[in-house]
Amino acid sequence: MRDFALDCVTEARAVALQWFRHPIDVMAKDDDSPVTIADRSVEAFLRKAISTRYPDHGILGEEFGRTHLDADYVWSIDPIDGTRSFISGSPLWGSLLALLHRGQPALGIIDIPFTSERWVGECGAQSLYNGKPCCTRSTGTLEDAVLYATSPDLFEGGTASRFDALSRRVGMRRFGGDCYSYGLLASGHIDLVAESGLQPYDYLAICPVVEGAGGVVTDWTGKPLTPASGGNVLAAANADIHRQALALLNA
Amino acid sequence: MRDFALDCVTEARAVALQWFRHPIDVMAKDDDSPVTIADRSVEAFLRKAISTRYPDHGILGEEFGRTHLDADYVWSIDPIDGTRSFISGSPLWGSLLALLHRGQPALGIIDIPFTSERWVGECGAQSLYNGKPCCTRSTGTLEDAVLYATSPDLFEGGTASRFDALSRRVGMRRFGGDCYSYGLLASGHIDLVAESGLQPYDYLAICPVVEGAGGVVTDWTGKPLTPASGGNVLAAANADIHRQALALLNA
Repeated sequence: MRDFALDCVTEARAVALQWFRHPIDVMAKDDDSPVTIADRSVEAFLRKAISTRYPDHGILGEEFGRTHLDADYVWSIDPIDGTRSFISGSPLWGSLLALLHRGQPALGIIDIPFTSERWVGECGAQSLYNGKPCCTRSTGTLEDAVLYATSPDLFEGGTASRFDALSRRVGMRRFGGDCYSYGLLASGHIDLVAESGLQPYDYLAICPVVEGAGGVVTDWTGKPLTPASGGNVLAAANADIHRQALALLNA
Repeated sequence: MRDFALDCVTEARAVALQWFRHPIDVMAKDDDSPVTIADRSVEAFLRKAISTRYPDHGILGEEFGRTHLDADYVWSIDPIDGTRSFISGSPLWGSLLALLHRGQPALGIIDIPFTSERWVGECGAQSLYNGKPCCTRSTGTLEDAVLYATSPDLFEGGTASRFDALSRRVGMRRFGGDCYSYGLLASGHIDLVAESGLQPYDYLAICPVVEGAGGVVTDWTGKPLTPASGGNVLAAANADIHRQALALLNA
């Protein structure tokens, strides 16, 4: 199933890239987030490949909904994570594919078509960046930590205050990145990613990547992420920095 | 001089990339911004090439200061624009090289080593993206405009309020990007870049790129940028959207 998933994602690169930096219509979804023919084409491509090969498996996709979620194996698809980057020409968007076994993420792929970069995480194995083992770093204090989040506009009300309490204490905070930030964390370049308002297809693929690289990823209460988690995500390079960050988010 | 500049920047890619995503010391400069051996190596490489070939020219560089600024021709160097991206593994940093003739930017290069992308602007000529002509887009209203800025943390006090007055009115605002954002604008993918606290070596190279692509770039009062301008920069895809953005920044 891993090899099948990797092949699918490789083929999906061309589907996404054919629309990148070309004029396309941008539509608003019910939650006001943007969607394009690129998102829909990539998800349709992946769903068709999965349902042809594994007709009994379930699929949880961003654009075309949920089927067979009671199956033992369920695929989670975010065809273009970072649609706002995609529609404005910025290259750090990616495709996310995860395989859940009885509700637990067992395989996760973060694929970045424009830069031909890929992170792969698999339960019980070391995560890979472009086919080579990658691991998080051992930063021990928040003062030395680098934190990424896609945008300050992710956070509202009390969530914004909690994010501020953390992000004002770290050595450096930076915005932008979408799923790319979790790859940077898995490769040991940054220490924390804190985000809010994410959907299951946004975070299920990143869990095995971060965990298989030595990191920790939970919600903002410290609980493991499942398809039923709320959208507050905290990823950390190690348990020590995770504990410190969690304390500030809940101070 | 253009061909010489392009050759230099091509050779400088390898100088920067040898340090990217490898452990390097990060030092704080007087203004608390970070600097590394990568910034210094790239600038030293470019300065040596320029002073060997054009010993009478002046040089204005980020890391090693100013020489012969009274010369007819002066080169402006930002060896790594986006040092914070560079030191955290994010690929959208770039090298900026400009040539000023009697104080006016005549040639500008935005070079992105990791993605092998390059924008070139030359006074009186169409700007180029990877060797092909590029141009800005014709977005007519702020409601349809996409605005980029490197970070909300660029803006302080009254500048933050002015940036908010603009960025809350556009169709979409995004953070991240450093010099890459001006390239996206020159290629017609976004409509506005508004930043504060920039230095001459940050903006001199982007002026010919943006203007040669059909855009407008000034300070926040609408005046042309020179080495003596303050660090508030507004780049726009066209005169119409520039006028509307300027009005909000000064409302």
